[in-house]
Amino acid sequence: MGYAIRAEVLDLGVYKAGKPIDEVKRELGLEEVIKLASNENPLGCSPKVKEALNDIINETHMYPDASNFELKEAISKKLGVSPEQVFCGTGSDSLIRVICNTFINPGDESIMAEITFPRYEASVKLMGGKVISIPMKDNGLDIEAMVDAITERTKIIWFCNPNNPTGTIFTKQELDKVLGKIPPNVVIIMDEAYIEYVTDKNFPNSLELLPKYPNMVVLRTFSKAYGLASLRCGYGIVHKELGEYFNRIIGPFDVNLFAQKAAIAALEDEAFLNLVFETNLKGREYLYGELDKMKLPYAKTNANFIMMNTLVDDKIVFDRLLKAGIIVRPGHLLGMPGWMRVTIGTEVQNHKFIKALKEILATM
Amino acid sequence: MGYAIRAEVLDLGVYKAGKPIDEVKRELGLEEVIKLASNENPLGCSPKVKEALNDIINETHMYPDASNFELKEAISKKLGVSPEQVFCGTGSDSLIRVICNTFINPGDESIMAEITFPRYEASVKLMGGKVISIPMKDNGLDIEAMVDAITERTKIIWFCNPNNPTGTIFTKQELDKVLGKIPPNVVIIMDEAYIEYVTDKNFPNSLELLPKYPNMVVLRTFSKAYGLASLRCGYGIVHKELGEYFNRIIGPFDVNLFAQKAAIAALEDEAFLNLVFETNLKGREYLYGELDKMKLPYAKTNANFIMMNTLVDDKIVFDRLLKAGIIVRPGHLLGMPGWMRVTIGTEVQNHKFIKALKEILATM
Repeated sequence: MGYAIRAEVLDLGVYKAGKPIDEVKRELGLEEVIKLASNENPLGCSPKVKEALNDIINETHMYPDASNFELKEAISKKLGVSPEQVFCGTGSDSLIRVICNTFINPGDESIMAEITFPRYEASVKLMGGKVISIPMKDNGLDIEAMVDAITERTKIIWFCNPNNPTGTIFTKQELDKVLGKIPPNVVIIMDEAYIEYVTDKNFPNSLELLPKYPNMVVLRTFSKAYGLASLRCGYGIVHKELGEYFNRIIGPFDVNLFAQKAAIAALEDEAFLNLVFETNLKGREYLYGELDKMKLPYAKTNANFIMMNTLVDDKIVFDRLLKAGIIVRPGHLLGMPGWMRVTIGTEVQNHKFIKALKEILATM
Repeated sequence: MGYAIRAEVLDLGVYKAGKPIDEVKRELGLEEVIKLASNENPLGCSPKVKEALNDIINETHMYPDASNFELKEAISKKLGVSPEQVFCGTGSDSLIRVICNTFINPGDESIMAEITFPRYEASVKLMGGKVISIPMKDNGLDIEAMVDAITERTKIIWFCNPNNPTGTIFTKQELDKVLGKIPPNVVIIMDEAYIEYVTDKNFPNSLELLPKYPNMVVLRTFSKAYGLASLRCGYGIVHKELGEYFNRIIGPFDVNLFAQKAAIAALEDEAFLNLVFETNLKGREYLYGELDKMKLPYAKTNANFIMMNTLVDDKIVFDRLLKAGIIVRPGHLLGMPGWMRVTIGTEVQNHKFIKALKEILATM
């Protein structure tokens, strides 16, 4: 049609999401399907969230508060930062776009791990930025090599910790070694979408680092441990000057009213969060044990998913699991052929998954 | 702090939204506050929407369908277009950003009316584009002058019809006269957020024009007549090739699950939409009559709001209305000092507004 599309857009791919349950049911004629593909919380959300949602069901016609006043208050109180340091958006996805909108001019460089959250790459490219992709080290981020790749054109370095899709972390000690080598004009993204699941005592405390590093951006989300993926609410913590710039770009009503109210209620229920943590930990230990018995390699995880090596063609394992009513994320889509990423589910779901996996691998 | 912020961001302002009801209550110690500032639907939403929301309150933890499959089907069926022609986002706001992401390179020009929806300007500027602002004609868009302003650098021309904040329209005949003068590489945005309230028989039928003008983009929303502003769902209709480009940029989970389900349910309730239309029409006629009696000029509206001239300082009228528990949108914020934009409310709300306005103007 001769559209004058920007070159950056011509170059973009379309994001492939995990298959929705209804689609799998429809396509395969299955009645029960377990989705272990998108790291959703198998326990749902806090009952307090449901109450809060019920309370606003008569307010659908009202715009949400453009300043996210109450939500920012609640987050800042919980984390011990000031409300001016908090920014909120339509999931971390939209905040990643906002960060690139803020810093990336055409030709600017942005450093990320070869296997990490794919939205960094998409957002950098949309702004005409150049992605510098650094190979993994033991399935984790090689943060030393990442920092060594900084040049005068580098604007953003993306640290996903725990890393999606590998579940691995880098420690406080490893971070301390490289932080001094990052120039103050390079923005350090600490994407901690899965922080609520972390068990490693050496995990870095990014909020403690913030006052010393005004070029640091901490990203968190309500989509995982808080169980609010459907509602789209991510948030971040930064120096307040940087927060003011981000808020110029974030759309005034990006965080919908239901998300704001749900997130506030979710923050109030510590007991639910503890249950989520404990359930995930038990599931993790169970899966480790089973995978060890099956002699399948896996990456030690600090998140609510495990990246495991099927030692065969992951496409075939994915297809057969699908027919058994279990959706996982096949590694070939994530740059790790042979592997697959599996969300840690409820006890029943984990058992069903292991049973199905054993049966499939026995025939291959 | 020496942040390397893009020049375009340094240049952006922060959007000023209408004051939220809770804030006004808090600040002024009022118990009852009527908000006629953001063109929200005073009748709320369809009861079918509430049922649909209740049905998914246990699914907060699940990601929404990234392809918006069912919602696109429902919209396409309603409008008689193919699902590939439909694209959806977090309100029209986010779709305006997506359109600019698709077309605007630094230095590109974009033509808009001097007084129109402010998000066009913000999104064009964010991409480094140059805003060409065309003076109004009789408080409406001067589409002839807008088209005459097209140059080789023009990428997008924004037609807001009915225009926000003036409520005015341009007709099919006026549009027909200029369409032939718009080169095929200039994208024509028909922003029809308020189309469900239109009464003028000469309003252009943009969907009929689409097959002939593949450079046309029709924008609509669920925020106004459908009463779903809280949930953030806008949509658009385009040639399917252009839709494919937009979908590369739209975040995979931008439209939250609650918005998707609510919008589908809203489309099914024609009776509610008719009630909304009739209620608005009655309110419009009532306000016309009262303003005529008060000898206050106003722009004839095809939307759910009226732009009226207070003939005094709108800041003072705004403040006094606020103290009386009525929030409106003062004209000085919209580039029309002396005027104010008032949402057409329920019968009771409209009467209260006129009563308060009369009392205030009598003392000035």
